[in-house]
Amino acid sequence: MKAAVVPGKKQKWEIRDLSSPEPGPKQVLIKLAASGICYTDVHQTTGHLPGAFPRILGHEPVGEIVAIGSAVTHRKVGDRVGVPWVQSSCGRCEWCFRDKAMFCAEQMGTSVNMPGGHAEFMAAFADATVLLPEGISYTQAAPVFCAGYTVYSGLRWAEPQPHETIAVVGIGGLGHLALQYAKAAGFKTIAISHSPDKTELAKQLGADEVVPDGRALAKLGGADVVLGTSNSSTSMQDACKGLRPDGRLVLMGFDTQALNLAPSEFIMKRIRVLGSQQNRREYLFEALDYVAQGKVKVMTETFPFERLHEAYERVAAGQCRFRAVLTF
Amino acid sequence: MKAAVVPGKKQKWEIRDLSSPEPGPKQVLIKLAASGICYTDVHQTTGHLPGAFPRILGHEPVGEIVAIGSAVTHRKVGDRVGVPWVQSSCGRCEWCFRDKAMFCAEQMGTSVNMPGGHAEFMAAFADATVLLPEGISYTQAAPVFCAGYTVYSGLRWAEPQPHETIAVVGIGGLGHLALQYAKAAGFKTIAISHSPDKTELAKQLGADEVVPDGRALAKLGGADVVLGTSNSSTSMQDACKGLRPDGRLVLMGFDTQALNLAPSEFIMKRIRVLGSQQNRREYLFEALDYVAQGKVKVMTETFPFERLHEAYERVAAGQCRFRAVLTF
Amino acid sequence: MKAAVVPGKKQKWEIRDLSSPEPGPKQVLIKLAASGICYTDVHQTTGHLPGAFPRILGHEPVGEIVAIGSAVTHRKVGDRVGVPWVQSSCGRCEWCFRDKAMFCAEQMGTSVNMPGGHAEFMAAFADATVLLPEGISYTQAAPVFCAGYTVYSGLRWAEPQPHETIAVVGIGGLGHLALQYAKAAGFKTIAISHSPDKTELAKQLGADEVVPDGRALAKLGGADVVLGTSNSSTSMQDACKGLRPDGRLVLMGFDTQALNLAPSEFIMKRIRVLGSQQNRREYLFEALDYVAQGKVKVMTETFPFERLHEAYERVAAGQCRFRAVLTF
Amino acid sequence: MKAAVVPGKKQKWEIRDLSSPEPGPKQVLIKLAASGICYTDVHQTTGHLPGAFPRILGHEPVGEIVAIGSAVTHRKVGDRVGVPWVQSSCGRCEWCFRDKAMFCAEQMGTSVNMPGGHAEFMAAFADATVLLPEGISYTQAAPVFCAGYTVYSGLRWAEPQPHETIAVVGIGGLGHLALQYAKAAGFKTIAISHSPDKTELAKQLGADEVVPDGRALAKLGGADVVLGTSNSSTSMQDACKGLRPDGRLVLMGFDTQALNLAPSEFIMKRIRVLGSQQNRREYLFEALDYVAQGKVKVMTETFPFERLHEAYERVAAGQCRFRAVLTF
Repeated sequence: MKAAVVPGKKQKWEIRDLSSPEPGPKQVLIKLAASGICYTDVHQTTGHLPGAFPRILGHEPVGEIVAIGSAVTHRKVGDRVGVPWVQSSCGRCEWCFRDKAMFCAEQMGTSVNMPGGHAEFMAAFADATVLLPEGISYTQAAPVFCAGYTVYSGLRWAEPQPHETIAVVGIGGLGHLALQYAKAAGFKTIAISHSPDKTELAKQLGADEVVPDGRALAKLGGADVVLGTSNSSTSMQDACKGLRPDGRLVLMGFDTQALNLAPSEFIMKRIRVLGSQQNRREYLFEALDYVAQGKVKVMTETFPFERLHEAYERVAAGQCRFRAVLTF
Repeated sequence: MKAAVVPGKKQKWEIRDLSSPEPGPKQVLIKLAASGICYTDVHQTTGHLPGAFPRILGHEPVGEIVAIGSAVTHRKVGDRVGVPWVQSSCGRCEWCFRDKAMFCAEQMGTSVNMPGGHAEFMAAFADATVLLPEGISYTQAAPVFCAGYTVYSGLRWAEPQPHETIAVVGIGGLGHLALQYAKAAGFKTIAISHSPDKTELAKQLGADEVVPDGRALAKLGGADVVLGTSNSSTSMQDACKGLRPDGRLVLMGFDTQALNLAPSEFIMKRIRVLGSQQNRREYLFEALDYVAQGKVKVMTETFPFERLHEAYERVAAGQCRFRAVLTF
Repeated sequence: MKAAVVPGKKQKWEIRDLSSPEPGPKQVLIKLAASGICYTDVHQTTGHLPGAFPRILGHEPVGEIVAIGSAVTHRKVGDRVGVPWVQSSCGRCEWCFRDKAMFCAEQMGTSVNMPGGHAEFMAAFADATVLLPEGISYTQAAPVFCAGYTVYSGLRWAEPQPHETIAVVGIGGLGHLALQYAKAAGFKTIAISHSPDKTELAKQLGADEVVPDGRALAKLGGADVVLGTSNSSTSMQDACKGLRPDGRLVLMGFDTQALNLAPSEFIMKRIRVLGSQQNRREYLFEALDYVAQGKVKVMTETFPFERLHEAYERVAAGQCRFRAVLTF
Repeated sequence: MKAAVVPGKKQKWEIRDLSSPEPGPKQVLIKLAASGICYTDVHQTTGHLPGAFPRILGHEPVGEIVAIGSAVTHRKVGDRVGVPWVQSSCGRCEWCFRDKAMFCAEQMGTSVNMPGGHAEFMAAFADATVLLPEGISYTQAAPVFCAGYTVYSGLRWAEPQPHETIAVVGIGGLGHLALQYAKAAGFKTIAISHSPDKTELAKQLGADEVVPDGRALAKLGGADVVLGTSNSSTSMQDACKGLRPDGRLVLMGFDTQALNLAPSEFIMKRIRVLGSQQNRREYLFEALDYVAQGKVKVMTETFPFERLHEAYERVAAGQCRFRAVLTF
């Protein structure tokens, strides 16, 4: 099979001819149909995120099951599936018994210590795969497995209540989905973006209002929830100025720079800052369903697998404004 | 191996010599050390609960792993484990993707469509087994897998808050544990029991007060939570009279008779009635830990496996006041 | 002033000429602009609900402040206000210190032990009055003070989550608002009504689907929340058949007949039944705001005050399908 | 009456002879029995916190009602009461209608724009006063009105669950109460203190363990909740190292220095930082009750009113390790 291999830290990806993986007893073999490229691929390539080389990246893989391992009982050939980040964990620690595998020290992650989706085939643990709902295309489904799952988890983690207002910082790959999910779930939405060219776009995505920063957000009445999808700590910090009393900032995107938050601001407005990841598998189920129903539309640039260098470069250069997806 | 087989509906259990089961690829073989008998065993024997015959009951099994299936990676020979009710589910339906296997229509249940623990050996799905914490004996651990897990789930489901009072209806197999868990978690506790002979006992178990019924509970100031561990709808209904405003009745034990609840009572006191089962695997983790720490002590009558008829008869006749456990 | 006085239990209302009330030191005098008539007025007239006679009913009063008591500091002449059910409480009991005046044994209720709004003027405690938001008409505002507040409280009490489905039983005075609030808050909504003539109407009010009963609701996939606005226990019980696992029935309407609920149903589907009233003053704030924004429209039959007998008779006979409002 | 007046910013307090205040129509006149001095008194004296001069400080006042205003109905002469920080608010804004007066821009605060308790008599709004439970002494009650209310609010705000562990940073005036409340509510508690001399004390107050810093806390297994009662941002930041996954840091004490928090830490451990104040009046009710029951004991240094300079100086110099209380 053809696979995109990152030979070593900071090295250029190579398309290599490898033999297809054999699924282990509890694994399935997936023929990839689409595989999203995320800015995380860049962090993985540069070594800012852990993982040994050479390896195959791609943590938004979707496709069709073409073979199953000897012990697999709940998946079958022909199933349309996707694979999220966490595939397996030790099954023996407190966090595994709490069904919070994301905190298990020995988790197996797609594109980290399990092969990713930038290849014609990949093996994955059957129990980790998620069936795609009817009516969702592979290209729409792929980015839900990381970007969609992340932002919808963040929305749910904020425990938004009827009548609340939700603002989104960063109208890019994550943010354009956050905005749509918030709107689809019935909330008043405000986009925070200092790029004037994003105003029109944010409105098309469902933003009721667009403001340049936290101060302008405050003037407009503020937001109960700010979904921090930006990877600038400065932007997320600034957005806190627009939080209403009892408001919550959900951190999803991250910067190496620290957030500087004044205790007095936390206390006087009684605000909260919440870290969030891909929080519960049922959020992925719901996130896929919104897309399957057409209530959320992923904005993608698709690239045939052969053009992956071009795709990667656009992502790395920040030129791909939303989601890049390789197709097979 | 020797196994207790229920030959058919309403028939007397028989000790038979069977060949030991072979664990499937994803299963482990457990050499039983203890297996609790519950009143549910009686319902299963009489056919009030579903399941085909002949079969081996026992849904509170604990023991040591003596063999593992070919695809098992997270359990090893020598592990001390127990097995809860739900072992496996379809992995394909909404409820499976919501990590709520208890609602999956195709779930595999210990002693229902998977063999139970009243035998020298049993096979169980490896991923369903739970490692026993250090320092807990097999006899103490067994009843936690159904009785303890159930009542601690009920306590957690009520979302009890600091400063609240928790009452327990029914000071038997479930209730004596409910009382202890509520006490161990720091709440003021009240036992509701009309048997005067249980007063002393309830106090030993940690009850701050003992009252005969809901009216007496109300006189004492009421309870914020009533844990309904009784299998009498009448008793649980009556206990609602002692609920404080915003109080919650958690239903765990059940009767074939309906609960009759006046809408006006629900509305005026704004109370809630919550169905509860074995709600989240992390509650089992915590329930075991309280016992391992010695903060909750299961009151058991133990019977060597050969005396299982005696054990069953005591349970069926309601003579075994707390938990019966077979030992091997 | 002209006032509608109920001379005694089960007696016909009389329009009498009374002297206008003098507001006490902490009270305001309101010149009524609109006053809703609710089926509760019928229960109060027949004596099914407590209160001494003769008295003036009307617990959905709105109007303009025309005089203030000597100690009133936060209201002024000209304020447009409405008055909810609970006006005052003892201020000394546990429930008062918990800010849950609805549980205070000595509460003062509009139309119970404080005069109601079926009169040209009424006195009310200043701190109980709520300022009407800009842009809401008196006729639209009046029914929010009981009907709207009640159903929106019920919706909030159910803690509905993004992606959930909300069904409403009883598409009448309460239900037509419940449906609209659920829709305005972004949920998928289903109306349960066995009157075929309400189908079209329910859809106009925002119902995504209309079903005749709980069984049909279940076939459609069920609902996570059922808002029980019917005053038939049978209907609300029946609707539970359509609750999804982890679903909640919120009881708002009430019947003298008990609800009969099988413990096994509670436990197997892990459902909840929640009593609900007018739960928190902030829900009234939000309920008014939705109407002020035009997202919820109260369907009213308005009657000039002089035609109150006609209004009352239509309400008592169940002919007024939604809300009757007296205007001044 | 004798009153401690702060003549101007950064000036020494003076004991002056003033005429007793006349309670307004909605106010009561309280003869002070005890009045706590808090480090906040220092911030108020130095002008770090807002308020005009000259004024009387003291925001932990308790005493007996000796006169009531003309419109007061719920308080009577002889009532034993205390007064919390927020006494009154505008009653017209969104936050007032949400029953969150702490966010009202026009709130009236004890010792800010209402006279405080460092005097023989004070007038306070009747509705703001809280009746003292039976069996609590004035000296024990006073510090609950700020310190106790604050830390118990923080504990409740963290929504601690059964089986969780609570750590407290800063074992001083706030922290010694936080530790006791957490213990009284049934949690495992850990004190974080780098002063070796506080180890013994922390254990006497109910700490199950004492550790010097966040790293040591982590080694011990960590805490689910950290109650940040310190006024050092550095200490609270450091304590985050000991938060378990899904843990929460509650900020109560504050520093002018910002907290520096790495987004990656928030996200990987999915932690939360929550601002907290005096959050709900029912928490004050419960906080008083714990002390009345003897389950929490305020450690005080009491000073007869005449020795207030000595009291103030000890507080200002950080020599008074717990709570200073003036008595009358």
